[in-house]
Amino acid sequence: MPEIGKSAAFADQLLAFRQRTDRTLLDFIAPLPFNDGDLVASMRHGALLGGKRLRPFLVYTTGQMFGIAQNNLDAPAAAVECIHAYSLIHDDLPAMDNDDLRRGQPTCHIKFGEANAILAGDALQSLAFSILADAEMPDVALRDRLAMVSELAAASGVAGMCGGQSMDLDAEGKQIGLAALEQIHRHKTGALIRAAIRLGALAAGSSGRAALPLLDRYAAAIGLAFQVQDDILDVIGETEKIGKRQGADQQHRKSTYPALLGLDYAKVKTWELYQEALAALNALAAQSYDTAPLRALASFIIKRDN
Amino acid sequence: MPEIGKSAAFADQLLAFRQRTDRTLLDFIAPLPFNDGDLVASMRHGALLGGKRLRPFLVYTTGQMFGIAQNNLDAPAAAVECIHAYSLIHDDLPAMDNDDLRRGQPTCHIKFGEANAILAGDALQSLAFSILADAEMPDVALRDRLAMVSELAAASGVAGMCGGQSMDLDAEGKQIGLAALEQIHRHKTGALIRAAIRLGALAAGSSGRAALPLLDRYAAAIGLAFQVQDDILDVIGETEKIGKRQGADQQHRKSTYPALLGLDYAKVKTWELYQEALAALNALAAQSYDTAPLRALASFIIKRDN
Repeated sequence: MPEIGKSAAFADQLLAFRQRTDRTLLDFIAPLPFNDGDLVASMRHGALLGGKRLRPFLVYTTGQMFGIAQNNLDAPAAAVECIHAYSLIHDDLPAMDNDDLRRGQPTCHIKFGEANAILAGDALQSLAFSILADAEMPDVALRDRLAMVSELAAASGVAGMCGGQSMDLDAEGKQIGLAALEQIHRHKTGALIRAAIRLGALAAGSSGRAALPLLDRYAAAIGLAFQVQDDILDVIGETEKIGKRQGADQQHRKSTYPALLGLDYAKVKTWELYQEALAALNALAAQSYDTAPLRALASFIIKRDN
Repeated sequence: MPEIGKSAAFADQLLAFRQRTDRTLLDFIAPLPFNDGDLVASMRHGALLGGKRLRPFLVYTTGQMFGIAQNNLDAPAAAVECIHAYSLIHDDLPAMDNDDLRRGQPTCHIKFGEANAILAGDALQSLAFSILADAEMPDVALRDRLAMVSELAAASGVAGMCGGQSMDLDAEGKQIGLAALEQIHRHKTGALIRAAIRLGALAAGSSGRAALPLLDRYAAAIGLAFQVQDDILDVIGETEKIGKRQGADQQHRKSTYPALLGLDYAKVKTWELYQEALAALNALAAQSYDTAPLRALASFIIKRDN
């Protein structure tokens, strides 16, 4: 029963990288000044509330594929997660998605007030770039470290996450087509997932850079698959498991894949994207890279129930 | 009448760097994707609404002191101003200072709504780091460019601006002492002014680094002087000239230097800080640096009426 063995190994690896990420984030947040105040408490709440840490997993496993030691990958993994955490804090704000529940816990502004939530998001974004500029990456060249700053900034800004969130807000309450929905998600969530993978590859310098086109192809597929599955879970998932209000998308009158395609074809769509992800990985495997962890992640993304 | 000549030269230089900064910011914002949408319009509104561009002036004149060509300084000048612009947008939000007027114009959330204002601030912060990572700086070494990222991120986050804004919000409606007020301003505005000067110096590599302690001393003095003068103008300035509601501090029950020290001693305080700034510049002048522009700026800061 090799499938079960593989999947158990994947779960172990996901857990190990999640714990490593939590420790690393805490190591970066703990020494901040004023860490007994509400601002840092809000940052801790947003960054350490849990979550699967898929983006750090992508940084670690991609870096590993190129033989990079983990102590080079802690910083980019934590930096990407700081950006992700800040985006969740800001997306949950009353003026944005107005969510009061995230990962089964009160959202940042519910617990600490709006001003702290805005500032905590702002400061987590700054922290991401502090980490990339300052933290130890013993085997990473300056040029590659600077390329990480460039990638993460691009993925976070107008050309990435912020642009996607803006399009998403514009689309609320409107009928939009499949192409527009895909455009939103490729920016809102896809860009940062792609950046996580690229940061892992950049840690490896030129060998990693050579693999970027295939890694981008994999990233585009799993990024979108992740979002389609998110939409599916919003329809069929249980609030307890997904940690946020089930049916929230419908309530916000958001366009989703199940709404546009029907639930069955949305499921077919995740399967097609999974196949596309595997095709990219097969091409990397043909270059003798060990793609098993990225393969297991693609499978996890379309099978997860939370 | 050498004073008049000097002061006219300073005004010309301030204007020239202001115009150069505006052009540079526009050059970085114009090619962004979705630049016909509300997000980029909000960023333009926040970044190009005017302002004296004191921080870019500091980047340019400090870099110039070390003989650095201006095309190396455009990127750090624009990056610092992006951070400043984002901080103003977020500080004006209803959950923060709730201001509807800035530089004589409606604030970003008044004109574009809160969601766009939050996102525009977020995206301007990302843009600052994109600029530092990507833009042309032909004579700047990688190590110095990365040091700029480090400086700007530190000045923006908990240890700098965000920390200061958080302390400022905590202090609202409370009686705080002079030391606490100074602590707020050294973070809230002082950190970014210091970063602007340091970025200009870092563009010069090792000669700039050697001068950092004296430049920091100058920065600390003018940063605080700027804030004391701001507080004074809030009491005695005209709404039309200062571009925001005169008396807003008193209305927000903010602790200010005039409130704590009385108006006369607040004016003495700016004079003392000016002398401290000149002392630091004298030490630099003794090393044959041309400190005239930084000297003129210190004088401008304590004499300005807007």
